[in-house]
Amino acid sequence: MKFRPFPLVLGHEAAGIVESVGPEVTKFSPGDKVIPLFLPQCGECDRCQSPKTNHCRKNWAHTQRGVMADGTSRITHQSQQVYQFLGVSSFSQYTVVPDTSLAKIPSNAPLDKVCLLGCGVSTGYGAALNAGKIEKDSSCAVFGLGAVGLAAIMGCQAAQAKRIIGVDINPDKFEKAKMFGATECVNPQDYSKPIQDVLVEMTEGGVDCALECVGSPVIMSAALESTKDAWGTCVIAGWSETEAMSVNVEKILMGRTLKGTYFGDWKSVDGVSKLVEDYMNNKLKLDEFITNNLPLDQINVAFEHMKIGKGIRTVISLWPEEASDTVATLKMNQ
Amino acid sequence: MKFRPFPLVLGHEAAGIVESVGPEVTKFSPGDKVIPLFLPQCGECDRCQSPKTNHCRKNWAHTQRGVMADGTSRITHQSQQVYQFLGVSSFSQYTVVPDTSLAKIPSNAPLDKVCLLGCGVSTGYGAALNAGKIEKDSSCAVFGLGAVGLAAIMGCQAAQAKRIIGVDINPDKFEKAKMFGATECVNPQDYSKPIQDVLVEMTEGGVDCALECVGSPVIMSAALESTKDAWGTCVIAGWSETEAMSVNVEKILMGRTLKGTYFGDWKSVDGVSKLVEDYMNNKLKLDEFITNNLPLDQINVAFEHMKIGKGIRTVISLWPEEASDTVATLKMNQ
Repeated sequence: MKFRPFPLVLGHEAAGIVESVGPEVTKFSPGDKVIPLFLPQCGECDRCQSPKTNHCRKNWAHTQRGVMADGTSRITHQSQQVYQFLGVSSFSQYTVVPDTSLAKIPSNAPLDKVCLLGCGVSTGYGAALNAGKIEKDSSCAVFGLGAVGLAAIMGCQAAQAKRIIGVDINPDKFEKAKMFGATECVNPQDYSKPIQDVLVEMTEGGVDCALECVGSPVIMSAALESTKDAWGTCVIAGWSETEAMSVNVEKILMGRTLKGTYFGDWKSVDGVSKLVEDYMNNKLKLDEFITNNLPLDQINVAFEHMKIGKGIRTVISLWPEEASDTVATLKMNQ
Repeated sequence: MKFRPFPLVLGHEAAGIVESVGPEVTKFSPGDKVIPLFLPQCGECDRCQSPKTNHCRKNWAHTQRGVMADGTSRITHQSQQVYQFLGVSSFSQYTVVPDTSLAKIPSNAPLDKVCLLGCGVSTGYGAALNAGKIEKDSSCAVFGLGAVGLAAIMGCQAAQAKRIIGVDINPDKFEKAKMFGATECVNPQDYSKPIQDVLVEMTEGGVDCALECVGSPVIMSAALESTKDAWGTCVIAGWSETEAMSVNVEKILMGRTLKGTYFGDWKSVDGVSKLVEDYMNNKLKLDEFITNNLPLDQINVAFEHMKIGKGIRTVISLWPEEASDTVATLKMNQ
């Protein structure tokens, strides 16, 4: 993957209201509440037709290059072209997205909550349920207790895992992790031995499934090595575009599986629609991820909090004077 | 895994006849034809009870240390203890194995053929069918065209894959690979670019499944990178105990799966029994792997052939004067 073009408008985890639609758009009307999707679901490509993946091919190359399908971006600043981020660019009061990158949600869905389903929460929750296929009574370890990790814990709990071990170097996260379903938490800094050795001892041979929700190749290796022989599975949900991880070959030969997940393996439109419904029916927590709310002009405060590991998600209001009609969230410590 | 104890008697791919049984052995009698198994199937441990794995726990630690379950080996030389290799030690006219490490086979099974099912052929064939779960009309690449790789090709063909691409730096192997089912073969030395890039171009995005049958971490990385985005699977069947492979994290995040296989994921007793039956019913090729037959006292010739890549499998006769009642095979260029 190439580095992204600059300048660009960031933001990809959001919810909003349709302002207007292009002439060929039939599925959406002005006023519809929606969640924009960095991963489309066109429904027509070979990937969308297959039950094995959610990696829709639609507009992929253009999106990575920061432009729409026609090769242009719709944002300029003082006549200079400004690129779009992952086809979303939600740190903006208005944005333009293809109709295959949008999930319609119920008119009573609270935008300042369901915005979280645009990326992190869906990714972590699906990493456990869809990619990890966590089984009842199994043991799991979740590395990294930001929003993705906490959502992975929530997924492990929904799958009725018996042991759900949260792992983070910031013990301030442990209380929230337990609220989401962690049965115990460990801080690697409390041990002189590698954390994978600690987990293998704690679980008498390793966990059934480890979920990496950090995006660090070193932690990915540790996560894989914390799983058990014979059928241990390590799911990588944390994002890292440019690096390589080291895999102990014998660990793989002894029956382990390493796999990645992109947006929690949810077919994006279908998945987000279902998850919003689950939230509305109290089957999924969202409010508990939100630790702050700020207007767009204070977004740099939110970035600072992210850097120092304060809180989980800050929801940014793009139209503060009208409450929270269009909101984006800033990732905090995934 | 620790290095193995020396001195030891090598050999782990064999067939023979039961000479005598211990007092508590009920499933075998003198005269039974059998294939000894380096991986047991006790039928009682949690692993044997699970459909997810073939990694029976029985005697694992002892076997790795070159001894039987009572901590002793049954081989000495001039009063010095000699260790057993993987619980088999079949480069010997007699050996002692636990009854959980033995598959009974039909009395008309030719020992000098079915001996191959003790390791390599079963591993490669199962890597494709069980671990890779090769699908009809899919595309596959098999790295390394020794016995394991050729058996993997045979498995891809049995699964009705559409494209089966053999990869080896020794083009002498290509004719046999095609006989086993390869639709085409490529030699990495014919290209200036990495072989994974060649394969991705040949298949317009990568193969559905790559099978590594070499045991080289560099080739394992290439195999993974030759698979396609979204659902590409790389199965490691080649053995390497001490090394690490490098995994491009983005390749994993884009939907690939990396997994290992041990003895082709066959539950050992059940699997070998079934495979012998398949061979007897002409559903599985074995004769075609055998490129030489030698008596035990010429085993070093077979090792030399292995080193220079001549042939696939040499079958070693332990009792040459009585034809081939007890035989072991020497691995050739897996």
